[in-house]
Amino acid sequence: MIILGIDPAMRRTGYGVIEMQSADRAAIVDCGIIGNARELSHSECLRRLYGGVGELVRNFHPDCVAMEEAFYGKNVKTSLILSMARGAIIAALAEQGVPIYAYSPRKAKQAVVGSGSATKGQVAAMMAVRFAIEIAGIPDDATDALALALCHGQVAAVPGLQDLLPQPV
Amino acid sequence: MIILGIDPAMRRTGYGVIEMQSADRAAIVDCGIIGNARELSHSECLRRLYGGVGELVRNFHPDCVAMEEAFYGKNVKTSLILSMARGAIIAALAEQGVPIYAYSPRKAKQAVVGSGSATKGQVAAMMAVRFAIEIAGIPDDATDALALALCHGQVAAVPGLQDLLPQPV
Repeated sequence: MIILGIDPAMRRTGYGVIEMQSADRAAIVDCGIIGNARELSHSECLRRLYGGVGELVRNFHPDCVAMEEAFYGKNVKTSLILSMARGAIIAALAEQGVPIYAYSPRKAKQAVVGSGSATKGQVAAMMAVRFAIEIAGIPDDATDALALALCHGQVAAVPGLQDLLPQPV
Repeated sequence: MIILGIDPAMRRTGYGVIEMQSADRAAIVDCGIIGNARELSHSECLRRLYGGVGELVRNFHPDCVAMEEAFYGKNVKTSLILSMARGAIIAALAEQGVPIYAYSPRKAKQAVVGSGSATKGQVAAMMAVRFAIEIAGIPDDATDALALALCHGQVAAVPGLQDLLPQPV
C-alpha cells in the first residue's frame, strides 16, 4: 500500500510518499515541497498545484491520499486562500481517481506522536525515527505530510480496522 | 470580445457567456448551470467543476473570465467550501490561459443595476432587458453570472478604460 500525504498550501505544499510494508512497518519513498514563488498570481499557483499533484500521482501511483482537513484559522482571508489550494489539489486527485482521506493536524499528531499539541519539530523528530532518515534538510511541511500519510497508513494497513477510517472526501 | 461570467459554488455554479459587440452593446451567447447533485462527494464535485469549466472554455473561447470574488460569509464552513470550488475553477481556467477578473457581488450589482443592494430578482430583470431575453426559465445563478460578465465587459470594451479594471487573479 502506497500512501501520499499532502499538507496543502498556496505557496508551500508539503508532500510525503510512504509504503506500508506490513501493518507496523512503513518505509519512506519520497518527500518534498511543491513551491510557488511569492510573485506568482493565485491562478498560476493553482495551475501549478493541480499539475504538480497530478505528476506525483503519475510518478508514485498511490492507493490513497491523506490530506490535512480544512480548518478555520484566526485569519479568515488566509483560510479562504488555503481552501482554494485544497480545491485545486482535490480536483487533481479526483481526476485520477485516488481516494482522499482528511485528518485534522491534531488528529495526525495524536496518531503519530501521541500528542495533538506536538510541535512541528517534535513531529519531524518522530518521522526521523520512524523512517530512519536524517531530517535536518527536510522542510517541516514535508515532515507534516509524512505524518499525515503515516496517520492514515497505520490504521489502513491493519486488516479489520477499515471502520476506523474517516469517510473519503 | 467574448466574456465568460462565473458565479462559483460547490453544488450550483452559474455561468453566462456574452459577446461585447461594441462598447455599449452586449449579446448573450449562452448561460446555464454546472450542477452537482447533493449526494456527490466534494472530490467528485470538484472534479466535475474543473472539467465543466474547461469544456466551457473549449466551446466558447472566452477572451477573459469575470468571476465572483471570495468573500467571508456568516457561515465560515460554507465560505471554505465555496473557496474550494473557486480553487478548482481557477485552476481549470489558468490551465487554459484565460485571464480571470474578480468582482464582489456588490460591485457587479452596482455596475449593472446601479445599486449594490439589488435583489437577485432585480438583477435578473435587468439582464432580461439588457439582453432582450425571457428570463422566466433561467436560474438566478445564471443571471448573476451574466451580470458579472457584463460588469466586466462594459468597462473592458471601452478603449482607454483598462486602468479601471482590477488586477487579474
